[in-house]
Amino acid sequence: MEEEKRPAASRPLILVTNDDGIEAPGIRHLVRLMSRLGEVWVVAPQKARSGMGHAITINNILTYRECPPRDGAVREFACSGTPADCVKLAKDELLERLPDLCVSGINHGSNAAINVIYSGTMAAALEGGIEGIPSAGFSLCDHDTSVDLSPLDETILHLCTRMLEQGLPEETVLNVNFPTGPIKGAKVCRQAKTRWAQEFERRAFPRGEDSYFWLVGHPQCMDTGEDSDEWALAHGYASIVPVTFDLTAYRAMDSLRDWEL
Amino acid sequence: MEEEKRPAASRPLILVTNDDGIEAPGIRHLVRLMSRLGEVWVVAPQKARSGMGHAITINNILTYRECPPRDGAVREFACSGTPADCVKLAKDELLERLPDLCVSGINHGSNAAINVIYSGTMAAALEGGIEGIPSAGFSLCDHDTSVDLSPLDETILHLCTRMLEQGLPEETVLNVNFPTGPIKGAKVCRQAKTRWAQEFERRAFPRGEDSYFWLVGHPQCMDTGEDSDEWALAHGYASIVPVTFDLTAYRAMDSLRDWEL
Repeated sequence: MEEEKRPAASRPLILVTNDDGIEAPGIRHLVRLMSRLGEVWVVAPQKARSGMGHAITINNILTYRECPPRDGAVREFACSGTPADCVKLAKDELLERLPDLCVSGINHGSNAAINVIYSGTMAAALEGGIEGIPSAGFSLCDHDTSVDLSPLDETILHLCTRMLEQGLPEETVLNVNFPTGPIKGAKVCRQAKTRWAQEFERRAFPRGEDSYFWLVGHPQCMDTGEDSDEWALAHGYASIVPVTFDLTAYRAMDSLRDWEL
Repeated sequence: MEEEKRPAASRPLILVTNDDGIEAPGIRHLVRLMSRLGEVWVVAPQKARSGMGHAITINNILTYRECPPRDGAVREFACSGTPADCVKLAKDELLERLPDLCVSGINHGSNAAINVIYSGTMAAALEGGIEGIPSAGFSLCDHDTSVDLSPLDETILHLCTRMLEQGLPEETVLNVNFPTGPIKGAKVCRQAKTRWAQEFERRAFPRGEDSYFWLVGHPQCMDTGEDSDEWALAHGYASIVPVTFDLTAYRAMDSLRDWEL
């Protein structure tokens, strides 16, 4: 954290958000890292909003409060909404201009493989991408919020520096996941084919006969490909998956043409 | 609704859900249509859950109650959760076997273009697809819940019959949107490049100086391609976009290889 900072006039504007809430150790670490690269504005959920996917708040009001900036940030805002709401509010109401970089995380838990689709962390990054901002989500495959995050620094700084210098391919954001333990390096991967199995735990209400359910479950990997993110993570590499918000299954289009009416 | 039904033993099992809630006219219409093709089980949110994206309920309990079946359904369940939760609960707890078809909708409002990413309707269909069930979401580009939905019948029945007979390409579900007014036919399309602009309306609290915000905004189309869903809808066609839950931006992978550490 001791490097000389660039002069203010030329410093890039960096939006930092997450889905674990503005107090989570992961976002505080990311703010400290990003303050080495630019002028950091934090707009993040006031409380944890995990598993929100790309939810937006349309049937309720949104509020925010400004918080004292910490960890090298210039300004910070805690928002009542989802991660996707935070990026929208930052862009339209809080930031003075479109940021040069939008980063989300560091998430406490994996957003690799199919998790990307349930992830509020990645929804925020995708929302940045939709706005044309070079964007990435960072996640550590460990729910323990007390772990040392400094082994991630080199990769995160390297990727963010490249994103600031070169941008990203069109309609693409990065989903970056880190393994637990030592990091051997980083690999560009595809999303592994996985799903969640045996998802519910049934419990009885303390009064009455009805049951209620907790969504628990465990991930099931149907993919042994060495080009997948799960393979990289299982072998000690950080996984970098370029993800897109153009969900079109281009490969399937031709085979569906004769379904037209 | 007067056709002869297939004998029960050979009738496919069809899961119907939505994001407007189990009482919405759109899902009731879809239930009536699907009961012509198979044995219909309804598992849908007990209230409207629009804009939920692929949110799942992980920090709260899930409950359901069985409701009297209507509109030709065999059984119906109203669930406290999101559309994605409904499909998970149906698969793991409520249905006796994996359904042959999972349909979501008919949504009151467009899920074309970038809306797919915010859509609870499409999250339910994607969740079905992740489980390997041929799945589709149907939406009408009209928020008026009183409009006549029967002009959609022919296309929906045609597509669902094909899905039951042939399945869908791997990792693919259908995002089907209908224009308002007469329907000229249906076209297989890609997702148009759009985003939402000027998204917030700021209002003052009745007491105090702070503001709160409503997410409003209007869609902005950056795409004039005649192969896009927005073009099809603007020209009177139903749009059929094959969408995937593999978010990997394969086209971007090569250009990122030298970013590896």
